[in-house]
Amino acid sequence: MNDRVLDQIRSNNHRAISRLITQIENGTEVLDSDFSELFQYSLRALRIGITGPPGAGKSTLINCLVQHIVNRNLSVGVVAVDPTSPFTGGALLGDRVRMNRYSGNPDVFIRSMGSQGDLGGLAKKAQDVGDVLAASQKDIILFETVGVGQGEHDIIKAVDFTIVVLVPESGDEIQLMKAGLIELADAFIVNKADRDGADRLIQGLEHILKNYSQHPDHIPKVYRTVANRDEGVAEALNGIMESIENEQTTGALDQRRIRRHRQRVSTLIREYLLKSFWSDYRESHLIEETRTIESVRRSPYEIAQQLIKSADYE
Amino acid sequence: MNDRVLDQIRSNNHRAISRLITQIENGTEVLDSDFSELFQYSLRALRIGITGPPGAGKSTLINCLVQHIVNRNLSVGVVAVDPTSPFTGGALLGDRVRMNRYSGNPDVFIRSMGSQGDLGGLAKKAQDVGDVLAASQKDIILFETVGVGQGEHDIIKAVDFTIVVLVPESGDEIQLMKAGLIELADAFIVNKADRDGADRLIQGLEHILKNYSQHPDHIPKVYRTVANRDEGVAEALNGIMESIENEQTTGALDQRRIRRHRQRVSTLIREYLLKSFWSDYRESHLIEETRTIESVRRSPYEIAQQLIKSADYE
Repeated sequence: MNDRVLDQIRSNNHRAISRLITQIENGTEVLDSDFSELFQYSLRALRIGITGPPGAGKSTLINCLVQHIVNRNLSVGVVAVDPTSPFTGGALLGDRVRMNRYSGNPDVFIRSMGSQGDLGGLAKKAQDVGDVLAASQKDIILFETVGVGQGEHDIIKAVDFTIVVLVPESGDEIQLMKAGLIELADAFIVNKADRDGADRLIQGLEHILKNYSQHPDHIPKVYRTVANRDEGVAEALNGIMESIENEQTTGALDQRRIRRHRQRVSTLIREYLLKSFWSDYRESHLIEETRTIESVRRSPYEIAQQLIKSADYE
Repeated sequence: MNDRVLDQIRSNNHRAISRLITQIENGTEVLDSDFSELFQYSLRALRIGITGPPGAGKSTLINCLVQHIVNRNLSVGVVAVDPTSPFTGGALLGDRVRMNRYSGNPDVFIRSMGSQGDLGGLAKKAQDVGDVLAASQKDIILFETVGVGQGEHDIIKAVDFTIVVLVPESGDEIQLMKAGLIELADAFIVNKADRDGADRLIQGLEHILKNYSQHPDHIPKVYRTVANRDEGVAEALNGIMESIENEQTTGALDQRRIRRHRQRVSTLIREYLLKSFWSDYRESHLIEETRTIESVRRSPYEIAQQLIKSADYE
C-alpha cells in the first residue's frame, strides 16, 4: 500500500476504504507488511463483538445500535462475518439494500464478509478489515458473528468486549452454559424480549452468572431489547459503554487487549503455516493419491505422512 | 496399540473400546501409526453426520434413531461432538444418564466428546473415535455436531451422508441457504413438526431444493418428525437408508467417500503443522512478546514473522 492510500484511509475516504477491503477479500494485492504500517493508526478504536445463534435478530439489533452510536456523536464501522446475516448474503438476495440508509454518512461504514468453507482465512481477513476501519478513525468497530466454531471464535477472541445476543427460544441457561456462550460474554442482550419465556431466561442467566462467575466483581450484565421496535437498545448501549469505561479504569480492558493481540498472532501463524504447506504440487499430489475408491483403503495417516515428507515441488 | 487391544476392538469388547477412546481424548498414549493398522478394519461402516442449530432436538432425535436402527438388526455407534448436546455436557450436569438404557447392549455404543476451545483437535479425535467404533464392526456410525464453524465442518465433510435437522424456528429457507446449511445436506429432517410454521418451512425447503440443486437427479429429501413422540422417525430412517442404497448404485457414495478421505488427510496435516510449530519455546516466546499493554502497539504481523523466523528452541 502506498502512502497515498494510507493517507486516504486515515482521512476516512470511504471509497478508498471500500477498495482496500475488496483487495483484502480477494487476498491478492495486499501484503502483510502493509498492515504493519496501517496497524499503528488502528489502536484507538474500541472493538466490540456481537455474537449469538442464528435467528436472534443480531442484524436488526446492530442496525439499531448503529443509530444510537451515531446519536452519541460517535463513528462506527461494522464487519459482518455472520454467514446468516442479511448484510452478508445481501448481494445474492437483494436485501443488502437494508443498510443503504447510511450510505453517504461519513460516520458509518458497514461491510459484510462471507465465504463459506473459508472460515480459516476469514478470521484474519475480518481483523484486517477491522484495522482498516479503525485506521479511518472510527470510534467503534462492531464485529457480527454466529459465534460457534473455530473461525468465529478467532474473531470473538480478538475483540475488546463481547456481547452475546439471545432470544427466549435460544434454550435455557444450562444449554447456553454447555454451548460455551456463558463464558464468552462480557454482556448479554436478550432480544425479542416481548416473547414468552424472556423473563425466565433473564432470571436464569442472572442466577447462573451470579453463582458461577470467575470474577465476582465483574459479572456480565443482562439487557432486554425488542430491537425491531427500538425498545431497550439505547439503554443497553449506555450500560455497555459504562461497563467498558469501568473496565478501562480497572485495567481489565488492557488485559483483554493483550489477549486479543496474542490471539491475532496465533491466527496469523496458522494461516501462514497452511499457506506455506499447500503448494500447488502438494495439492495435486493429494488429489492424485485420493483419486480412486480403492485409495480410501489407505490410512489417511499414511497419506498425510507421505505429503509431509514430500518436498513442496518435485 | 498391541495386537491384543486391536483384537479386543475387533471383537466388540466395549470396555476395551471405551479405554481406547479415553486415550484418544487424552491425546497421549495413542500413536498415529496405531490408526493406520486399525483403519484397515474400519472401512465397512456407514458414517452419517447429523447436524443442525442448537435447540433443534438433535439428541432426542438421535436417541430415537438409535432405537430404530437397532430394530432393523443393525448395530450403531454414536460420536456426539456437539457442545450443546446433553450427551456431551452430561457429565457436568447429570443428564448423561439419559443414554443409560443402552448400556450393556453390544449393538449400541454412545460416546460424547467435547472440549471448548479445542475444536481444531476435536475433528481429528472424533474421526479416530469413529474408526474405533467402525473397527468394532458397528454397521452405522452417527456423528452429532452443531454444524457451524471449522471444526464441525471438518467432521461433517468426512461422513458418507449428512442429515441437517431443523425446527420451524430455525429460520426460513433463505436464511438457511445463507447459513450454508442447504448445500451441506443430503437429507433434511424438520423436527418438532407439530409446531406452527413446519409446513411453511418444509414447502420452502422443497421449493429451494428443487430449483437450486446442482444435481437434479439427486435432490435431498425433506422428512418431518416429532422425535419426542417417536413420530416419523422410522419413516425418515427408511427413506434415508433407501437414498443411501441408491447412491451406492449410482456411485455417488463412492465419490463422497473419496472426498471425505481427502478431507481427513487435510485435517491431519493441519494438526501436524500446528503441533510441530508450537514448541514450548515458541509458546513462551509469544507470551513474552505480548506481556504488556505497550506490546499491543507492535503489529501482530511483525510478531508472527519474528516467531516464524525463530528456531523452535534457543
